[in-house]
Amino acid sequence: MKVGVAGIYQTKFGELWERSLEDLIREAAQGAMKNAGLEKEQIEAVFLANMLSDQLASQNHLGALLASCLQIQAPVTRIEAACASGGVAVREAVLLIEAGIHEAVLVVGAEKMTDAATTEATASLMGAAGEDEALAGLNFVGLYALMAQAYLQEFKALEKDLAQVAVKNHFHASFNDKAQFPYPVSLEQVLASPKIADPLKLLDCSPITDGAAAVVLVSERLLKKLGQKPVFIIGSGQASDSLSLKDREDLVSLKASRLAAKKAYQLAGFGQKEIELVEVHDCFTIAEILALEDLGFYPKGEGFVAEQNGEVKLGGKRPVNCSGGLKACGHPVGATGVKQIVEIAQQLRGEAGKRQVQGARFGLAHNVGGTGGTAVVHILRNGG
Amino acid sequence: MKVGVAGIYQTKFGELWERSLEDLIREAAQGAMKNAGLEKEQIEAVFLANMLSDQLASQNHLGALLASCLQIQAPVTRIEAACASGGVAVREAVLLIEAGIHEAVLVVGAEKMTDAATTEATASLMGAAGEDEALAGLNFVGLYALMAQAYLQEFKALEKDLAQVAVKNHFHASFNDKAQFPYPVSLEQVLASPKIADPLKLLDCSPITDGAAAVVLVSERLLKKLGQKPVFIIGSGQASDSLSLKDREDLVSLKASRLAAKKAYQLAGFGQKEIELVEVHDCFTIAEILALEDLGFYPKGEGFVAEQNGEVKLGGKRPVNCSGGLKACGHPVGATGVKQIVEIAQQLRGEAGKRQVQGARFGLAHNVGGTGGTAVVHILRNGG
Repeated sequence: MKVGVAGIYQTKFGELWERSLEDLIREAAQGAMKNAGLEKEQIEAVFLANMLSDQLASQNHLGALLASCLQIQAPVTRIEAACASGGVAVREAVLLIEAGIHEAVLVVGAEKMTDAATTEATASLMGAAGEDEALAGLNFVGLYALMAQAYLQEFKALEKDLAQVAVKNHFHASFNDKAQFPYPVSLEQVLASPKIADPLKLLDCSPITDGAAAVVLVSERLLKKLGQKPVFIIGSGQASDSLSLKDREDLVSLKASRLAAKKAYQLAGFGQKEIELVEVHDCFTIAEILALEDLGFYPKGEGFVAEQNGEVKLGGKRPVNCSGGLKACGHPVGATGVKQIVEIAQQLRGEAGKRQVQGARFGLAHNVGGTGGTAVVHILRNGG
Repeated sequence: MKVGVAGIYQTKFGELWERSLEDLIREAAQGAMKNAGLEKEQIEAVFLANMLSDQLASQNHLGALLASCLQIQAPVTRIEAACASGGVAVREAVLLIEAGIHEAVLVVGAEKMTDAATTEATASLMGAAGEDEALAGLNFVGLYALMAQAYLQEFKALEKDLAQVAVKNHFHASFNDKAQFPYPVSLEQVLASPKIADPLKLLDCSPITDGAAAVVLVSERLLKKLGQKPVFIIGSGQASDSLSLKDREDLVSLKASRLAAKKAYQLAGFGQKEIELVEVHDCFTIAEILALEDLGFYPKGEGFVAEQNGEVKLGGKRPVNCSGGLKACGHPVGATGVKQIVEIAQQLRGEAGKRQVQGARFGLAHNVGGTGGTAVVHILRNGG
C-alpha cells in the first residue's frame, strides 16, 4: 500500500464562537487543496467526516453542503463512525486511491460542538454508546472510568499514572498554536481538578471542541508530479467490536484497536518496532495507556510505566501525541481522525516547528469510535 | 465494471410499531447473507446506510450497533447522504469489490421513522435541505412543489399528469406484499386528496416508513462459486449539486442525476436505450417525471406523456417502479437506495412473482438525496 499525502491543513481548534460548521469545512478543504497545489476541479471524490451535525445543527445532508460551499459536482460522501469518523473517512479514500479508482481525493473532518449547550453536546455524544448504557445513566466519562477502575485494580497503577498522560499532552500542546489548550498543566493541577467519574478528573478528559482538518490523498504518480515531499500512507486497518462494554471480552483492552493495528502492520510489512511517532485516541487519559498496549508498543499492564519514564514524551524514544492529543489539542469529534493524519504528515515532512521529532520516518495514527466499537489505524512513511 | 449481486433481502415496509431499528437491521442483514449462501465470517466489510437514527433514535454509532447485533469484527462503515444514503453505500461496496480489495461486502439500509412524532420526523428530514430553505419555512413537500410549479408552467402539464404517477405506482405495489400500501388508488382519489403544497396533494407524496433492505455484493469469481444467478452491477455513478434550490441552474432538472447517469452509462458501455426496467426516486410524483427525463429516457418536458400512455407501466415498453416506488412501496429513507437494487436484482433473477417483467436483461436504479444535492445511479445486468 502506498498512497501519497499531498495536502494537509488544520484549522485552529477551540471554542470558535464566530465560526460556523460551513466556515470550518471551507477553510480546511481550501487549505488542504492549496497545500497540495491542486485545484478543486482535480479532486475526483470527497469524503466528509462528521458525527453530530444532525443533532447539533439539524443538518444531515452534509455532503451536499460541502459540494455547495466548494461549488463542485464530484461525489461527496459523508462518513459517520462516532469519534472514529475521521479515520474511517481517510481509510475510504486510501482504499480507492490504492485501487487506482481515483488519483486525488479530498478528506475533510469537521465538527461544530459549541453552538449547542454542553449538556446537549454531551447527551448527543452518548449516541456513540449502547442504548443499555445510556439507559443505565452512564455517560462517556463514566464508561471510560469503568475501564480505568479495572485497569488500576488489575495492574496496580495509580491515579497519578493517569494524570501523567494529561501533563505530557498539555506540554506537547504548548508548542502547538492550533491547540485548544496551548499551555502546560502540572501533575498537582490534574490531581486537584474536580472528579467527574471516579477515578477520572476534569483534566483527565478531552474537551468539547470546534474545528476541522483536511488532507488531500493522491496516487504516487501524482504526488511526484506535484513535487510534494514523499509522505505516504502505507498501512490501513479498521475493525469493529460490540457497542456496549458489557459484551466485551475484557475491560482493559480494545479488541477493535488490536485487530485494526494487526491489519495495518500487515499491509505496511512491518511491526510496531519501526514506529517512531504516534498519535493515539486519548479521549480520556486511560485511553492513551490502553492504546499504547493495544498497538503493541508495551505489554498489557505496562503502558503506564512509559508515561512515567518519559519514553513517550517529545525527546523520548517514541513520542506520543505531539499535537497535544485529543486531551490538549482538542477533540472536534469528526475532525480528530483527520487531524491525526495531518499531524503525522507534518512531522514526517519536517514542518512541525518547535514540536518537531527529528528525523522520524515512520508514524502511526490511531482513532477510536465510542468505547471501542470502531477503531482505525494508519501507518505513514517518509521517503519513497 | 462487473460486481456480482449474490444476496438480496427486503423486510416488510410500513408502520412497524413492534420492530426496533436493530430488529430491522438484523433481519435484513441475515436475510441477505442467507440468500447469498454466505456465513457472516465470509463478509469482509459492511456498509450501513441510515439517515435519521441520530435524531430519531439518539444513536450515532450505528456501525458498531450492527457489529454488535451480528457479532462481527469486520469494518462496518455508516454512510449518510440523506435519502441517497442507500445508493451511496451500495456504490462504496461496488467500488471496493470492483477494485479487488474485497470479495464479499454486505450493504444494509435501514430506517425507523415512526417511533418519533410525524412532526419530528418531518423536521429531521429538513436536515437534507439548505438552512436558508428551512429558515424560510419550507418543508420537503414545499420544495418539490416549487419544482412541480415550474414544470407544469413550462411544459403545459396538468395536475392529473402528476397524479398518474401515483396511480401507476400504487397499481404496481398491489402486486408487492412487502409494500407499505399494497393496493391501487384511482386518479380521482389522488386528485381529491388534500393539498399539502400546491400543486402536490397527499397522494402525490411518499410516506413516512419503517423498513430495511440488504444486498451482498461479491466478486464475479465468488458469485460463480456460490452458484448464484448471474446478476451483476455493471455501472455506477454518483454526483453532487448545491444543497439549496436557489443555487441551481434550473428547477425542472436535477444536474446531479444527469451527471451520475452519464458516469454509470459510461461504465456500463451503453446508453439508456438498452434499459428495460427502472426504479427511480419518486419521493413526490413530480420527482419521477424529472427522473425519467434526467436519465435520458425522454426529452425534457415530455416525461409526463409516458405516464399517460402506459409505457412506464407493467406490461409497457419500459416499466418504472415495479416495486411500487417510494410512493407506494414506502420510503424508509436510508433503506430506499438499497431496496431499489433488491427490486431490480429480483426482477433480473426472474423472482418478482406477479409483478415480473418478462425477460428483462438490463435494469437501472436511481436514488436522490434531498432535492438533488446528491444522486446515485446503478445499472444492473442479467447474464454473464
